[in-house]
Amino acid sequence: MINLSSPKIWYHELRNGLYLHLAADEKLTKALLDSRITGIAYETVTGPDNSLPLLAPMSQIAGRLAVQEGAKYLEKTFGGRGILLGGVPGIRKGKVLIIGGGIAGTNACRIAIGMGADVTIIDVSAKRLAELENIFGNTVKTLYSNSYNIAEALQEADLVIGAVLIPGAAAPKLVRRNDLKKMKPGAVLVDIAIDQGGCFETSKPTYHSDPIFIIDGIVHYCVANMPGAVSLSSTLALTSVTNRYGLIIADEGISRALLHPEIRSGLNCMDGKLMNQAVAKAHNMDYFKE
Amino acid sequence: MINLSSPKIWYHELRNGLYLHLAADEKLTKALLDSRITGIAYETVTGPDNSLPLLAPMSQIAGRLAVQEGAKYLEKTFGGRGILLGGVPGIRKGKVLIIGGGIAGTNACRIAIGMGADVTIIDVSAKRLAELENIFGNTVKTLYSNSYNIAEALQEADLVIGAVLIPGAAAPKLVRRNDLKKMKPGAVLVDIAIDQGGCFETSKPTYHSDPIFIIDGIVHYCVANMPGAVSLSSTLALTSVTNRYGLIIADEGISRALLHPEIRSGLNCMDGKLMNQAVAKAHNMDYFKE
Amino acid sequence: MINLSSPKIWYHELRNGLYLHLAADEKLTKALLDSRITGIAYETVTGPDNSLPLLAPMSQIAGRLAVQEGAKYLEKTFGGRGILLGGVPGIRKGKVLIIGGGIAGTNACRIAIGMGADVTIIDVSAKRLAELENIFGNTVKTLYSNSYNIAEALQEADLVIGAVLIPGAAAPKLVRRNDLKKMKPGAVLVDIAIDQGGCFETSKPTYHSDPIFIIDGIVHYCVANMPGAVSLSSTLALTSVTNRYGLIIADEGISRALLHPEIRSGLNCMDGKLMNQAVAKAHNMDYFKE
Amino acid sequence: MINLSSPKIWYHELRNGLYLHLAADEKLTKALLDSRITGIAYETVTGPDNSLPLLAPMSQIAGRLAVQEGAKYLEKTFGGRGILLGGVPGIRKGKVLIIGGGIAGTNACRIAIGMGADVTIIDVSAKRLAELENIFGNTVKTLYSNSYNIAEALQEADLVIGAVLIPGAAAPKLVRRNDLKKMKPGAVLVDIAIDQGGCFETSKPTYHSDPIFIIDGIVHYCVANMPGAVSLSSTLALTSVTNRYGLIIADEGISRALLHPEIRSGLNCMDGKLMNQAVAKAHNMDYFKE
Amino acid sequence: MINLSSPKIWYHELRNGLYLHLAADEKLTKALLDSRITGIAYETVTGPDNSLPLLAPMSQIAGRLAVQEGAKYLEKTFGGRGILLGGVPGIRKGKVLIIGGGIAGTNACRIAIGMGADVTIIDVSAKRLAELENIFGNTVKTLYSNSYNIAEALQEADLVIGAVLIPGAAAPKLVRRNDLKKMKPGAVLVDIAIDQGGCFETSKPTYHSDPIFIIDGIVHYCVANMPGAVSLSSTLALTSVTNRYGLIIADEGISRALLHPEIRSGLNCMDGKLMNQAVAKAHNMDYFKE
Amino acid sequence: MINLSSPKIWYHELRNGLYLHLAADEKLTKALLDSRITGIAYETVTGPDNSLPLLAPMSQIAGRLAVQEGAKYLEKTFGGRGILLGGVPGIRKGKVLIIGGGIAGTNACRIAIGMGADVTIIDVSAKRLAELENIFGNTVKTLYSNSYNIAEALQEADLVIGAVLIPGAAAPKLVRRNDLKKMKPGAVLVDIAIDQGGCFETSKPTYHSDPIFIIDGIVHYCVANMPGAVSLSSTLALTSVTNRYGLIIADEGISRALLHPEIRSGLNCMDGKLMNQAVAKAHNMDYFKE
Repeated sequence: MINLSSPKIWYHELRNGLYLHLAADEKLTKALLDSRITGIAYETVTGPDNSLPLLAPMSQIAGRLAVQEGAKYLEKTFGGRGILLGGVPGIRKGKVLIIGGGIAGTNACRIAIGMGADVTIIDVSAKRLAELENIFGNTVKTLYSNSYNIAEALQEADLVIGAVLIPGAAAPKLVRRNDLKKMKPGAVLVDIAIDQGGCFETSKPTYHSDPIFIIDGIVHYCVANMPGAVSLSSTLALTSVTNRYGLIIADEGISRALLHPEIRSGLNCMDGKLMNQAVAKAHNMDYFKE
Repeated sequence: MINLSSPKIWYHELRNGLYLHLAADEKLTKALLDSRITGIAYETVTGPDNSLPLLAPMSQIAGRLAVQEGAKYLEKTFGGRGILLGGVPGIRKGKVLIIGGGIAGTNACRIAIGMGADVTIIDVSAKRLAELENIFGNTVKTLYSNSYNIAEALQEADLVIGAVLIPGAAAPKLVRRNDLKKMKPGAVLVDIAIDQGGCFETSKPTYHSDPIFIIDGIVHYCVANMPGAVSLSSTLALTSVTNRYGLIIADEGISRALLHPEIRSGLNCMDGKLMNQAVAKAHNMDYFKE
Repeated sequence: MINLSSPKIWYHELRNGLYLHLAADEKLTKALLDSRITGIAYETVTGPDNSLPLLAPMSQIAGRLAVQEGAKYLEKTFGGRGILLGGVPGIRKGKVLIIGGGIAGTNACRIAIGMGADVTIIDVSAKRLAELENIFGNTVKTLYSNSYNIAEALQEADLVIGAVLIPGAAAPKLVRRNDLKKMKPGAVLVDIAIDQGGCFETSKPTYHSDPIFIIDGIVHYCVANMPGAVSLSSTLALTSVTNRYGLIIADEGISRALLHPEIRSGLNCMDGKLMNQAVAKAHNMDYFKE
Repeated sequence: MINLSSPKIWYHELRNGLYLHLAADEKLTKALLDSRITGIAYETVTGPDNSLPLLAPMSQIAGRLAVQEGAKYLEKTFGGRGILLGGVPGIRKGKVLIIGGGIAGTNACRIAIGMGADVTIIDVSAKRLAELENIFGNTVKTLYSNSYNIAEALQEADLVIGAVLIPGAAAPKLVRRNDLKKMKPGAVLVDIAIDQGGCFETSKPTYHSDPIFIIDGIVHYCVANMPGAVSLSSTLALTSVTNRYGLIIADEGISRALLHPEIRSGLNCMDGKLMNQAVAKAHNMDYFKE
Repeated sequence: MINLSSPKIWYHELRNGLYLHLAADEKLTKALLDSRITGIAYETVTGPDNSLPLLAPMSQIAGRLAVQEGAKYLEKTFGGRGILLGGVPGIRKGKVLIIGGGIAGTNACRIAIGMGADVTIIDVSAKRLAELENIFGNTVKTLYSNSYNIAEALQEADLVIGAVLIPGAAAPKLVRRNDLKKMKPGAVLVDIAIDQGGCFETSKPTYHSDPIFIIDGIVHYCVANMPGAVSLSSTLALTSVTNRYGLIIADEGISRALLHPEIRSGLNCMDGKLMNQAVAKAHNMDYFKE
Repeated sequence: MINLSSPKIWYHELRNGLYLHLAADEKLTKALLDSRITGIAYETVTGPDNSLPLLAPMSQIAGRLAVQEGAKYLEKTFGGRGILLGGVPGIRKGKVLIIGGGIAGTNACRIAIGMGADVTIIDVSAKRLAELENIFGNTVKTLYSNSYNIAEALQEADLVIGAVLIPGAAAPKLVRRNDLKKMKPGAVLVDIAIDQGGCFETSKPTYHSDPIFIIDGIVHYCVANMPGAVSLSSTLALTSVTNRYGLIIADEGISRALLHPEIRSGLNCMDGKLMNQAVAKAHNMDYFKE
């Protein structure tokens, strides 16, 4: 059982990373409430600009890893198309379709371009697409998100990266089981949104020890904790951003620390009370505003 | 009638550019022989590495112009597809197919990439394709030249640039009349090889005053003297390279100048004799080796 | 007469694009009022950040086209300087001056750089100039907008692109008739702001069928509806952004749809009343706030 | 047994790729001689510039794959350091050391840079290092090959790619078993030269089904036929370059085809005689010059 | 004595630049109060987004100059390491460490990359580090600012640029005297924050006429008015941004001009009263709010 | 006195670099002949492709340093124009003119572009200019070398770098004293060719301790041994390339080593005889061919 009452121990836990994800786990929620622990969840710490500063580095890592995994499982050995993402001079490049131009998608985009692929990124925001062109210049193709564009791009893609994450909500199902039949046999789907239920209908969580499965000839990579594969980089990235919150708690004590709005926004439970509205709603429990 | 006997006048002519192209014009050949003129043709002056230094700048200009013209005549006003070559964020880019990775094709490639198009360049040489990737990085797609690749690329292309020039020979017909039907209506063909007969079967020479015609819904741009459109740039480019040959002739007189191998290689006629083997062969005449 | 009362028909119109520009047309304004139509004008739909989301794609297209047109009409055939925008190795590049670093100007800048020109962009905002350097790196020259800088840059320019658009107001006259004499003969002016009266004193609207005229040796390109030249790209770009507004109107009916602030900001007339303050002011009519 | 006597069948084999590597296999050499087959080995076909045109595409593919494999096996799951090659903003990038700046090394370099790594490439040729800087600009670090530089770079590297291939000779051992102890635990070695004996002392050939092994904490990836992982891309690349030789043999028959110097250079055995000097030397057999 | 009472003269002064920096100079403060001058200080003029528009161009210039100076004083002649920042092919690049990713640091970064150095930039903001990667791509290394990262980077650095400026406060001491001993002998420190007390403990202001001094073998460049070295560029940059404020004062008179919030924020003293809170606090004087 | 007879000592000297430059020093020539030393001069060692492998790294370093020095001495403090080479956003960049596109000029070009300058490079070879565009893309302007282009470019330049080196001959005088008056006051000339007499008429050798002088308002930087300023980088670069020649001499002895054509080409004197034709000619002495 996790004991968060001592700042010192809390800080230690923090170094190992601590996402609570209570909305998805009623049992854990109740156990934490019973223990009367003060539980601060990384994933709900919110910056003044509504950013999620403790989620961002994990999205960056997952986005970059997604292309590395996709390239690997495109190999014939794993049931993939046997395509080299960047081709070689004279030979067609692999086509990568990235759905979602947020942090994860943008980071996937950077690596896919770097590996020499023919990259298309889809987003709902015209403004974001223009920003992506400013960042990547004429090495990327941008496309407005609509069902026609997605359907057409899916048929041509060798690798599809699902990077649509809606904070605090289940990811929308962008690719249906039916769509798989229209795709090229041996194409690869990587679902970065798997932690939130996945953005492909046929996704189900897998582990680094057995990361892929095949449905209708399409290789699925749906590892739930992608950053765990590069644990050294991930730990450094995470502690770099969590550090200053941990120091505030260690220095000022938890009571005063909770006066900082960002830390307060991370508070999920305290003294046996549920302090996060979304979690309360998910489990139909009472929510205490303080 | 052109008088090449005086170095001074010759030099003046040179400033205006002087390609003889005798192999394509028996009448002019005979007139020059009758006049007993010393005729040095730009297009046969050959460098020690078999390069054609007085043709190169014209190929550079024609290659760059080809994309400018292709982009313009893709406009709806002229019967084109109504496509903006680089698209805008969220909208598909136009697809440009460049056939031939020599000087003209490489220069076309540079501008097509710069205008934001989705550019594919085809060549027979694996080594040249690797060089093109070194120059343009992951902003270009390279493809080995074979009939399958060309046929497939033609169907997808919005703009096709024919840049296959075989020195001293008629250009091969890479696109047949039948192929036009498989292309997208309103696509544009630009034939840089038109001076050598063109590399599309349906090409026929046009002029800057009336540059295009439409066959089977495909817009053809086949202006024979493309660099004439940008006469100021072309004149500067040409005189920059011809200058030093002209100065040699002016300084040393034509007899001594002809001891320079590069100038000698340009000699087509002298004292009523035909001095260029290819021209002699073309008109079935006698060839004097000196 | 346009009938906007039925959402279904309205949506159909929307697919074809519908900018009302009532402030510039009193007759149309009165006709719409008489018809008691509910008129929503693309050009006044305003985003929460004061952006104009339905104008942006047209500015992007016009900006990119502006360089394509400028390059074309620099050809000798049309009275231009006979300059190739990007030059060739060894030959001076054409100088492009872009006045205005907003959406249109930035897009013009991207293409002008891509075509290899020597590009200078002028803006009043120091912050925007720094952003432009971040986007384009050392391929662009940025210049503070003041009369000295503009005057000096005009004299050197081969192609000048006027991209100063002040939302809802007449464009300022940046280049006066007198300035033309100081420019290089055969230089080209492209006036993207022509829809708002133009930012060059000598501009007057032209059409794609007869796009240019010459004053004092300077070629003017002032086509009022530039995106029409690439109708396929323009339609896709426009419908991509208008789509979601149209769907809201079709789904919810016009009354409820008008509760959305962005749609409300587009409302110009309804039930015979003028609902847009700027239009009312332009025609000295009454303005109804609802 | 392979039957090369019929051009048609030969051509079929060619489509599947056919490297003989007789110098490394005395048994196969004798069997081919006994069968009196005409054996043309891809790996000895030599271009006029001493290039090996049928080896080049395989080197390109192996070079690019090497980084993809190295990135994958750096994951913690496989005993790697748990490092993300490109890091994320704020976190150190992985260091990639590429030994050898030929075709394989250059292609590895392109992908390693693209994945955001901190890349150092080592070569013996000062001229080649300058060319690499021209290709990759300031995204790459180049280093003269000497034992001091290699030793120092090894200690810092997360991923080492051995790309030193000396045509027709065993690869030199650049990394000794002793060196492994000075490397970071979990670092990865990829040996592209494994077909020629490998350029790391501890390398031994592995297969795609079980590609890695660990010695002294260092992960070794030594798959002998790397391009097999991306069989679709590899087949296209290979047939693109072999095609024209196959067509010559099919069109002209093997006797006349052997008059082409490039095809002749590929001839290893014919009519029971050994026709390649290096193979003869390797097995201490007689060599027939024709 | 400076007379700011006449707009005309004020404007003239403005052309020569006028930073008051009263908080650091009690004597000047009192003299200005006694003179009853209306004193508007460039350094406190504040934009609506809390930017300091009249400081920004000086930060840009100082950042760029910092690398130029650092490269110069790395030369052996001046006691530096004798390192060429960009190295040459085959030779290690110089390592540049930039502490602070604001305007000065970002501009230093651009030039250091351009000179071919191995550049690391450190900042406290994860968001800013991601922006820097978007601007500079894979030519820069970014690092979270913490004592471990700074200490480690210091030991490897050839050139360290201190660019941590906290508006209106003394710069934090990022490098202590003790740290110098761990650095490479002949490394160079450039302290851009010297005007605010410097961000290295051993910094003390120097002049262009004698810009460097050496402590513990480390070369210090601490010129207080760096932009003065490039006075022509600096004057143009400064007047470009101050111009519009000066014109407002000249046109409207000082009283009305002070109604503009940006000009008001620059007001430090008027009619013998101290109008800036920070200056008042610094000298323990009374502050008049108007 | 230098003793080259012992390989061990010779090798030691080599580590310190050893250019003889006998053609320019009759006294040294005679002394070496008298000593009967075997003198191998770095500067005449010639590769199979007529390259000068032991001069190349010094040209690379001098080229890069030239821009660093030019930028520094453009500062007002030293009599320069007070221009920041890269400007800042909104302010004109400094104009750099590089005369000569060989190794030194190309390396100068790379740094000048990196510092954000407006760079023009001039060369006589059209082929080289096209290569430079391939390397530097649209960040550089290339210009054919002729007196008109040089004269015009000189008038606009803030910094001129003379990089015209003709192996074994005095550099041509590209800028005459008269030209200085047409240049901008405070412009800077850097003469990389000063070791061969300089390519500006007004150049005379200077030292790192007092590197510049001013004639007609133009700052001259003419340090004869530029790489000495960055002695650490220079020594590494030089020993990297000389190493393998030294090892051959140490391993095989001087007699056998001289059978290597590259080492032989470096031989200037032996057994009291002059073995280099150019040196013999320069001093009107006898030349022994072996």
